[in-house]
Amino acid sequence: MHILVLGAAGMVGRKLTERLLRDGRLGKSDITRMTLQDVVAPAQPADSGFPVGTVTCDFAVAGAAEKLVAERPDVIFHLAAIVSGEAELDFDKGYRINLDGTRMLLDAIRLIGNGYKPRVVFTSSIAVFGAPFPDKIGDEFFNTPLLSYGTQKAIDELLLADYTRRGFMDGIGIRLPTICIRPGLPNKAASGFFSNILREPLAGKEAILPVSDDVRHWVASPRAAVHLLAASRAAARLAGRAFVTPDDVAKMAPAVLRHRIALTPDAELERYRPDDAIAAAVRSVPVPR
Amino acid sequence: MHILVLGAAGMVGRKLTERLLRDGRLGKSDITRMTLQDVVAPAQPADSGFPVGTVTCDFAVAGAAEKLVAERPDVIFHLAAIVSGEAELDFDKGYRINLDGTRMLLDAIRLIGNGYKPRVVFTSSIAVFGAPFPDKIGDEFFNTPLLSYGTQKAIDELLLADYTRRGFMDGIGIRLPTICIRPGLPNKAASGFFSNILREPLAGKEAILPVSDDVRHWVASPRAAVHLLAASRAAARLAGRAFVTPDDVAKMAPAVLRHRIALTPDAELERYRPDDAIAAAVRSVPVPR
Repeated sequence: MHILVLGAAGMVGRKLTERLLRDGRLGKSDITRMTLQDVVAPAQPADSGFPVGTVTCDFAVAGAAEKLVAERPDVIFHLAAIVSGEAELDFDKGYRINLDGTRMLLDAIRLIGNGYKPRVVFTSSIAVFGAPFPDKIGDEFFNTPLLSYGTQKAIDELLLADYTRRGFMDGIGIRLPTICIRPGLPNKAASGFFSNILREPLAGKEAILPVSDDVRHWVASPRAAVHLLAASRAAARLAGRAFVTPDDVAKMAPAVLRHRIALTPDAELERYRPDDAIAAAVRSVPVPR
Repeated sequence: MHILVLGAAGMVGRKLTERLLRDGRLGKSDITRMTLQDVVAPAQPADSGFPVGTVTCDFAVAGAAEKLVAERPDVIFHLAAIVSGEAELDFDKGYRINLDGTRMLLDAIRLIGNGYKPRVVFTSSIAVFGAPFPDKIGDEFFNTPLLSYGTQKAIDELLLADYTRRGFMDGIGIRLPTICIRPGLPNKAASGFFSNILREPLAGKEAILPVSDDVRHWVASPRAAVHLLAASRAAARLAGRAFVTPDDVAKMAPAVLRHRIALTPDAELERYRPDDAIAAAVRSVPVPR
């Protein structure tokens, strides 16, 4: 199986590539080749059990998409995008990359024809949704994006669905929330401050909250979530069970989450501990039935 | 006020043009000029109180949109489109006209700048919606179009909303249902048979229903609806009232609708009259509160 990753040098692209290299397989198929593309040079992996090529190019210029798909990769992860803040500041660039680039990619796949029908995994965004929000936002909530970025992602989803219905590809869009905590310096995403307000205090620095403190937002910290799931599975296995119970999760939560929590000076003065915060959080989550 | 109508030679375009010429005004402004565009030559109106120009061109080729908006029309009705059946049969043509053409128009308006901000009225379609449908389909129902045509209209709506939010225009999209009864020959709309099954029997001809007879669909017959409203207003005025009551509508319904109804031979044999059908329909509509 040949996997092409567009936007491989970004945060999600790097994490995805790392994981695919480690697993050596995707679903039930062995990976036999990978191609990593980005507009800045993707890092060449040190060792992998199969050939990994890198391509440095703007995928949204004429002819680029055709070259990228010419060798018919079986799975294409399309993560390449201009982030929200930049797409809002530079109208033309946002539409060129996020809409035209994606459409060029889909058309390049379509025009190969001859039965070529790759799996296309597209990272959309919760920015396709617009206020006012209900308490629970389902996939059936309508798309009234508040930014050009969300507009472009919503349009890409519509294209992906139509091209899939037509039989040109097997596409799926995933609406990612804000991924926290971004390492290193902030990027130009409008939601970047969600990482800042978590990262900077952990490093003992001040962080500015640019929105009202009653703003609710959906974020994902994949590492903690994945490790909590893995630890809970291990706990279930050690207890001789083939299934995870809510108690397994509650039992492993302190070990997985303790070092990820920084207390306020006030809480520390009151001898409040991270474990108290975790216990309170665990208590506040209803047991699923 | 200068009004530009794109797609002026189509059914809705002709009806709209006729009405604007008759009224001589739109909202509170006098019309001082009109430009009628279509890919087939729009008819030159016989007499009008102001200059009416006609343009025959494909609005979706490079440079066409710029020319059309160069004289900064105040209101643009954008009705030009490839209909559903044709957009489904000819993938490239549908996307070129319904998506690229609309985007070229919006960009041509945007790039004039200098405070130019026309009213853009875009005819979208109920094809933006996809099954399964709830009993009532509101504007907040999500867009999962089942055809490329609906996909293109949904994308255009997203563009219109973003360009409006950015301040490039004052856009509004209207999701038209199937307009019945289309005069003359069927066009290439997938929904054309809704007109056929009404038009052909009225002319004593056979019509084929290509879908199951429990299919429910949303149609609009603007003339009957407009005349029923006008007659009801007149009835209210004659009764010395400034407002229309449900009884006014019920009273005028037979006169407006009687000649629009063709009975089945079975119903005729049973001495059922069109007025009986209208009375039954009026009784079945709950009085609004």
